[in-house]
Amino acid sequence: MSNPAHELVLTRIIDAPREKLFRCYTDPKLLQKWFVPRPWTIAAVDIDVRPGGLFSATMKDPDGKEYPNLGVYLEVVENERIVTTDAFLPGWIPTGAPFMVAHVTFEDAGPGKTRYTARAMHWTAENRETHEKMGFHEGWGQCAAQLEELAKTL
Amino acid sequence: MSNPAHELVLTRIIDAPREKLFRCYTDPKLLQKWFVPRPWTIAAVDIDVRPGGLFSATMKDPDGKEYPNLGVYLEVVENERIVTTDAFLPGWIPTGAPFMVAHVTFEDAGPGKTRYTARAMHWTAENRETHEKMGFHEGWGQCAAQLEELAKTL
Repeated sequence: MSNPAHELVLTRIIDAPREKLFRCYTDPKLLQKWFVPRPWTIAAVDIDVRPGGLFSATMKDPDGKEYPNLGVYLEVVENERIVTTDAFLPGWIPTGAPFMVAHVTFEDAGPGKTRYTARAMHWTAENRETHEKMGFHEGWGQCAAQLEELAKTL
Repeated sequence: MSNPAHELVLTRIIDAPREKLFRCYTDPKLLQKWFVPRPWTIAAVDIDVRPGGLFSATMKDPDGKEYPNLGVYLEVVENERIVTTDAFLPGWIPTGAPFMVAHVTFEDAGPGKTRYTARAMHWTAENRETHEKMGFHEGWGQCAAQLEELAKTL
């Protein structure tokens, strides 16, 4: 089958209920603790969790260099689904070089467990390939492990 | 001042209240009557007026050739604002070549009148220029006149 959405997908069964995963995604203090693979860190988070609201999580590498990561929420369904993209800034202002849409879903997977699915969809096959080579599977996989570790402490 | 949103703007004072203009935008049977400059016509409309919902209005030239025009709603505020883009299909699936975001606002402008503003924002300066050369001002201006003519009959 073709891949019209130029998709990369990561799925994990996480040992925490979906309400806790949703909190880790939407509480800025929690998001800051897991959203980038260590030893990188998140220097600052500024989020307005509603369609059209700002998503900003500034990443910092081990040398202290910062990388802005800006976009908006497209859709938010409590404890179920979060969709974000870097294609806009708030006000639906188009940004210079749209790269991807991130679709995250949380589904019950037995008592206290969640099927966590993170999809990155791209506008072009080239961007999908770039993202895969940047280490999508390793990076998002490590973040999923950090997310699980944090959610289990809540 | 710079134009980071690569914007084209059309503003008109229309001799109809904003509730009627909103209806002309969101009732498929009405949308079909004004949404393309004559003698072009709209062959089919399929719309689901909510964030993430389909926007489809197939245009037909005087020779009968059809041109699909597909996208989604980003934001809908009754009688106030409609934002659409061709950058996604429903499900927030990225489309091949995102061209623009259309921001339409309706503001009261005295008894029975509306300040109608239609903004086309683009991801690149090239797309903005292409759109301007395609006849943005003439085309959207003629549509605004057709919209007013229709709204006054409601």
